[in-house]
Amino acid sequence: MTSIHIDLLLVGGTIVTMDSDHRIIENGSIAIDDSKIVWIGGSDPAGIQFQPVQTLNLNGKVIIPGMVNAHGHWAMTLFRGLLDDCSLETWLGKIWKVESAIISANNVVAGSELAMIEMIRSGTTCAADMYWYYDEAYQAVRRAGFRMVNGPTFAEIPGFEDRKEVRYDTAIQLIERYHNDPLIHIRLQAHSTYTTNQPILENIAQIAREKNIGFITHASESKGELELVYAKYKKTPIEVLDSVGLLGEKTLLAHCVHLSDDAIKRLAETHTSVVHCPSSNLKLSSGVARVSNMVQAGINVALGTDGPASNNDLNLFHEARLAALVQKGVTGDPTVLPAKKVFSMLTIDGARAVGLADRIGSLEVDKFADLAVIDFDSANLTPCYDLYSHLIYAVSASDVSHVIINGKIVMQDRQMLTLDEEKVKFCVREIAQQVRLIR
Amino acid sequence: MTSIHIDLLLVGGTIVTMDSDHRIIENGSIAIDDSKIVWIGGSDPAGIQFQPVQTLNLNGKVIIPGMVNAHGHWAMTLFRGLLDDCSLETWLGKIWKVESAIISANNVVAGSELAMIEMIRSGTTCAADMYWYYDEAYQAVRRAGFRMVNGPTFAEIPGFEDRKEVRYDTAIQLIERYHNDPLIHIRLQAHSTYTTNQPILENIAQIAREKNIGFITHASESKGELELVYAKYKKTPIEVLDSVGLLGEKTLLAHCVHLSDDAIKRLAETHTSVVHCPSSNLKLSSGVARVSNMVQAGINVALGTDGPASNNDLNLFHEARLAALVQKGVTGDPTVLPAKKVFSMLTIDGARAVGLADRIGSLEVDKFADLAVIDFDSANLTPCYDLYSHLIYAVSASDVSHVIINGKIVMQDRQMLTLDEEKVKFCVREIAQQVRLIR
Repeated sequence: MTSIHIDLLLVGGTIVTMDSDHRIIENGSIAIDDSKIVWIGGSDPAGIQFQPVQTLNLNGKVIIPGMVNAHGHWAMTLFRGLLDDCSLETWLGKIWKVESAIISANNVVAGSELAMIEMIRSGTTCAADMYWYYDEAYQAVRRAGFRMVNGPTFAEIPGFEDRKEVRYDTAIQLIERYHNDPLIHIRLQAHSTYTTNQPILENIAQIAREKNIGFITHASESKGELELVYAKYKKTPIEVLDSVGLLGEKTLLAHCVHLSDDAIKRLAETHTSVVHCPSSNLKLSSGVARVSNMVQAGINVALGTDGPASNNDLNLFHEARLAALVQKGVTGDPTVLPAKKVFSMLTIDGARAVGLADRIGSLEVDKFADLAVIDFDSANLTPCYDLYSHLIYAVSASDVSHVIINGKIVMQDRQMLTLDEEKVKFCVREIAQQVRLIR
Repeated sequence: MTSIHIDLLLVGGTIVTMDSDHRIIENGSIAIDDSKIVWIGGSDPAGIQFQPVQTLNLNGKVIIPGMVNAHGHWAMTLFRGLLDDCSLETWLGKIWKVESAIISANNVVAGSELAMIEMIRSGTTCAADMYWYYDEAYQAVRRAGFRMVNGPTFAEIPGFEDRKEVRYDTAIQLIERYHNDPLIHIRLQAHSTYTTNQPILENIAQIAREKNIGFITHASESKGELELVYAKYKKTPIEVLDSVGLLGEKTLLAHCVHLSDDAIKRLAETHTSVVHCPSSNLKLSSGVARVSNMVQAGINVALGTDGPASNNDLNLFHEARLAALVQKGVTGDPTVLPAKKVFSMLTIDGARAVGLADRIGSLEVDKFADLAVIDFDSANLTPCYDLYSHLIYAVSASDVSHVIINGKIVMQDRQMLTLDEEKVKFCVREIAQQVRLIR
């Protein structure tokens, strides 16, 4: 019998691994040391005696890989519900006006902390963010122990032309400073093809190649965007990105609501990932993305909440349910996007989309211990015939009891351990008072 | 100063009345005596001194009319998640097989109790049900203190031909026995036009006229149904119902996914109500109902979960969010079904659909005290710029803290007071063991 000292042992839960065999382990155990999973299996780890610092008994609960929110603008929690029932273009115009007046380092930190609280409470452990005040946001992420995908975002948006972040030297510094950071994963970002231009995109492509780093942008979100991009480039957004060499397996495109068959083929050929944001796309009437066609073509599709000002929450379970239901309804085929596939989009496909499939997205030895524990005892999950079905169609955020990120417990029995929830909510309500004066 | 003895006084909350002026009362008070609201207003009821048996301080919380789930099959909680990702016709065939083997009075009571727990937990105080074992279900409803709309359901479904409930004399007895019941509101029901026939529908119409009672049926749910009905009647379901005199202000039609312009016009002319069930319609690929067209035409549209075997939960907030988002997405118009209108569908329009608009659906003097209290302190509701926006786009079932039905507190600080939740879940899990042996 080998005796192994570890930090944390989880026992007694049903483990939905999302490994390549989609193994489900009843009465399973997960041994965690430092940030990683060092052992996973049934109740009897033959020949090993774990000596954990802490043990969590998760009997009757279900353990899932922490979910990946592959697109969002965290600090827009500050503007949650500020503007509803208008088009993307109208919405952007108004939001940008309020943002340019209200956004500061302190306010971005408060909004981002609120976003992390909401995401942890709903089982999300890693999220992409596209916003400003990177360094300050990264310090907040480290304090919270959350996993963030983020990076310098190029955009020429009215009111934001002179921001220091949209400079190539700053971008390169950020990439170098956070190289190998345990929680902050830097990507190059552009707001969109219509808020940048050919030289900017070419420069981004060059830095991405030199630094071997991923790229994230909005693309083909609305018909209005297609018109703007065509007027500027005489091309579609996908053609623009392709022409500068920005499609590929390290690229993640948010939305992709309006894609031709050719565009779908090209994204598949280039192994470009897409993040589907159904709440935002529907709420802004952008349309319904051809997700089942994309999946059928072999494109890796993740799920994202987009910013909470166009959603209006950061609950990935809502996106999953919506994606599964809407694709069935609009295609007329009830077999598309079955629950298990959608759960894959929430976990391992999401990890692949943000370039972290080797490190998160499934519960396997040597991966980071990023996971959520779901209490299947609630009325809405009773009875249970199929775990995946409940995880997509019947679960609520409030069923999430524990969340572990990078080996550390950040929520235990629904108590936040690393973020001061009352203080954050107080700060955000104070900022909202300023927002009310502007709008 | 008049002194009035009352049973319950609610103080300190923000009241969303949904009265005809859509009044919102800050720091409001509601006085409840026996089953009814006897006073509603601000913090100072001029000239009145209430002497309540019990007072609830709801400072910082939001009080809404209890929501109305206008279509469902409660006891199908027993089959929650049993079958996903198949068409309506396949699904019905399999579900009917399991139902005919498993349904008994005891099992219907257990499934209905679980449904009531789930609905109360998500702020629903009144729900329509179409199922079997009426008397036993009604006893369970009285014990729980829930408000039910139900009644004898005519249907010729394989395995259920000989059920005593589908007889006219039993129907008339039920109507007479529960006349003026405080919680059980009887309506005549038919499963559909394709599972009944012209003589049955004519008899129902005659009883409905004689007894001055409402009628509920499924109509125009799927293309498959339209084909079956056309083969049987050479008419659409709406035309069949019209021809026997079953359209009108006391009629509620579930689904109405496939409606021509003429059908919409005819439903509006006859003041027939519709209950929209977006989760079920999308999940079974039935299609997307023309809700914004119906609302524009003046049809009263309510929301329903349908049965939890095709949803897979009984959370009306999910239906509201889905209805609001999907209509914007498919019509291309982000201004359709704004949050306030959708909240009206959940409350006063739902009450109108089930024939109870004079008694529930808004918080007004002389109406039954059916209400839910929402805790707006949660991260997902922070900050708040607009109450209606949050109630549709950002709220979670777990934000509901208290529920009052017919003047009685049935949930307090998320504790169920009238239903033994642990016992009900245990019973349902036992029944699920039998279901697993059949499928």
